[in-house]
Amino acid sequence: MTAKSIITLLTDFGSDSPYVAAMKGVVLTINPAAMIVDITHRVPPQDIRAGAFVLGQVCSRFPAGTLHVAVVDPGVGTERGLVYLEVGQQRFVGPDNGLFSRVASGAAKIHALENRSYWLPEVSSTFHGRDIMAPVAAHLSLGLDAERLGPRVPSLVPFEWPQPRIEQRRMIGEIQAIDTFGNLITNISETDLDQIPQRGTARITCGGHRISGICRTYGDCSAGTLVALVGSTGYLELAIVNGNARQELGVAVSVAVRVEW
Amino acid sequence: MTAKSIITLLTDFGSDSPYVAAMKGVVLTINPAAMIVDITHRVPPQDIRAGAFVLGQVCSRFPAGTLHVAVVDPGVGTERGLVYLEVGQQRFVGPDNGLFSRVASGAAKIHALENRSYWLPEVSSTFHGRDIMAPVAAHLSLGLDAERLGPRVPSLVPFEWPQPRIEQRRMIGEIQAIDTFGNLITNISETDLDQIPQRGTARITCGGHRISGICRTYGDCSAGTLVALVGSTGYLELAIVNGNARQELGVAVSVAVRVEW
Amino acid sequence: MTAKSIITLLTDFGSDSPYVAAMKGVVLTINPAAMIVDITHRVPPQDIRAGAFVLGQVCSRFPAGTLHVAVVDPGVGTERGLVYLEVGQQRFVGPDNGLFSRVASGAAKIHALENRSYWLPEVSSTFHGRDIMAPVAAHLSLGLDAERLGPRVPSLVPFEWPQPRIEQRRMIGEIQAIDTFGNLITNISETDLDQIPQRGTARITCGGHRISGICRTYGDCSAGTLVALVGSTGYLELAIVNGNARQELGVAVSVAVRVEW
Repeated sequence: MTAKSIITLLTDFGSDSPYVAAMKGVVLTINPAAMIVDITHRVPPQDIRAGAFVLGQVCSRFPAGTLHVAVVDPGVGTERGLVYLEVGQQRFVGPDNGLFSRVASGAAKIHALENRSYWLPEVSSTFHGRDIMAPVAAHLSLGLDAERLGPRVPSLVPFEWPQPRIEQRRMIGEIQAIDTFGNLITNISETDLDQIPQRGTARITCGGHRISGICRTYGDCSAGTLVALVGSTGYLELAIVNGNARQELGVAVSVAVRVEW
Repeated sequence: MTAKSIITLLTDFGSDSPYVAAMKGVVLTINPAAMIVDITHRVPPQDIRAGAFVLGQVCSRFPAGTLHVAVVDPGVGTERGLVYLEVGQQRFVGPDNGLFSRVASGAAKIHALENRSYWLPEVSSTFHGRDIMAPVAAHLSLGLDAERLGPRVPSLVPFEWPQPRIEQRRMIGEIQAIDTFGNLITNISETDLDQIPQRGTARITCGGHRISGICRTYGDCSAGTLVALVGSTGYLELAIVNGNARQELGVAVSVAVRVEW
Repeated sequence: MTAKSIITLLTDFGSDSPYVAAMKGVVLTINPAAMIVDITHRVPPQDIRAGAFVLGQVCSRFPAGTLHVAVVDPGVGTERGLVYLEVGQQRFVGPDNGLFSRVASGAAKIHALENRSYWLPEVSSTFHGRDIMAPVAAHLSLGLDAERLGPRVPSLVPFEWPQPRIEQRRMIGEIQAIDTFGNLITNISETDLDQIPQRGTARITCGGHRISGICRTYGDCSAGTLVALVGSTGYLELAIVNGNARQELGVAVSVAVRVEW
């Protein structure tokens, strides 16, 4: 077993979907030695941004050579492109719709998936994950040269991620993702926070709620407290200790988060 | 790794059930090299029909020689039989209660599971998935001859699937399954639809809702539209683009679907 | 593939969590041949007792040498210890907070995880599952001697499990866990019940509900009936045949269950 045969799957098909199982069956028919790992299948349906965020967070944890297949594909069967890309030591297969916007910041090698030799013989109009992406990934895991997949593509379609506005004594960002615990992940990074002289004195506001100070970990505060901390994603997060901040604050992605000091 | 050592699991135990993990532990104790793949564990509890539909859809995607273990077993501990069957290149283990009615249309080789040598030493009354089916599957994945499992059985218990009624200028079918997206999968097949001269002019009705024309893929219509299309299952499906048709139409399995032209 | 390279995961991260995927990526980066099996990720958040119960039930089903990584860790980043332990043929990694209280009844070999050589180079304050436990488990699966992890620890922190009170003609226990079917698992064991001369004549009460007799399996009673039986866990369970007892009875863990005869 080498890392070259590891294939991850990220989709919006829902937990325990038989559609995911169909993709696994297609992969294993071509490469019975592939090791398939689920990243998540609970990306909210058609939510490219949420899928891109998770993929960006998790992919670098996998060994060099891992192939990540991502299927959040509201445009399936229309003119959107399907691509293979290499970024650093990671490899990706999926639709060119923004899903790779958090991994392809550097110069990436991109190929369009156009060579039907590596697709299933019959391709449906509604399930390219099974009929194109899974077989392409399986062939790549067997060592297929990516050049064979189709022509080089110069760049991915552009996809914007809002950046925090950083001023003299405050920064204004927003919630960019919400995790399965209901923790609110902002787009203010650990590095952004480095310009605050004393984190303990910062004041954070979001959706009418106020937090005093940025703490170090959940266990430092008592259960039920609303806290701000740098989470394992590397971004400022708002969380309720042993609780669900999304539910209790009633906020959503894109809501503003303000840090003042 | 060969396809002979791939074992799939389909149950109604619910996502992430420790009962599934117990089955995996039993398999790996007997064959640590087995490759276990989940098909789904979200079959609605005791819903043999839903389990049979998913198994019928997905099993053929797996490599020849794969062994599918299916546990939707409301009669566990009573007189219902447990069987092994071979259909084409696929192999199955599970209760003889209709769960295999979508895979065993051809002449199948069937054996009753009666030889306790391949069961766990202690068998509970409530969990034959763990105590009988998992160890039998593990032994089969190691190359055990199916003849050893128990006597030949002439046929499975009968299980009826409603067929669409096809008339001169209309066909009347029904919803036979609902997928995790809420798409309504009818029992009207792609082949049935071939007798409609122009699909774009067909009128589809279901639960008081009307659709004009059968389209090709979700991306062809705008979000929120109720559409009819041949889905990746090969059957006519009713779906809300980027939405959940089950919830919005408030219909269930067995509700009639009428196509006129 | 040997059982030594099997690593199970049990967490409270929720089904299909990308945080679980991050742990898998870390493991596979260190040992690409590890075979990772999910026990469950639906332990209720921070519910050490529920996690301990499931781990105690399932771990012994896995082959000798399996390494179980358990992350229900409300004290992450604080002074709670992280440990490795060996109990019989099973091995465990996780926080010393009671999570291993159902597996470590015998004399266990325990080591504190203190040697940073086997951790990720950067350790967050909020996610030791990814940064410490996953890499430690991966190194162990490659054959690392547990002595290298850190100093021997004499015992785990104490953690109490309520025991049933057994009297002349009755016993009073409680619900100690609820499974994914909604079955109510009491702390009255099969062995406890052995002192009842005739199980069919026992009277069971819980939350104002009464059951006459302990039956053998679900299929013996009609759908919708509230029954008492010894489930596959080896404990007396209260269940609704083809239904959900937790929902219908409206009871929770710790509610008393009384058996009289």
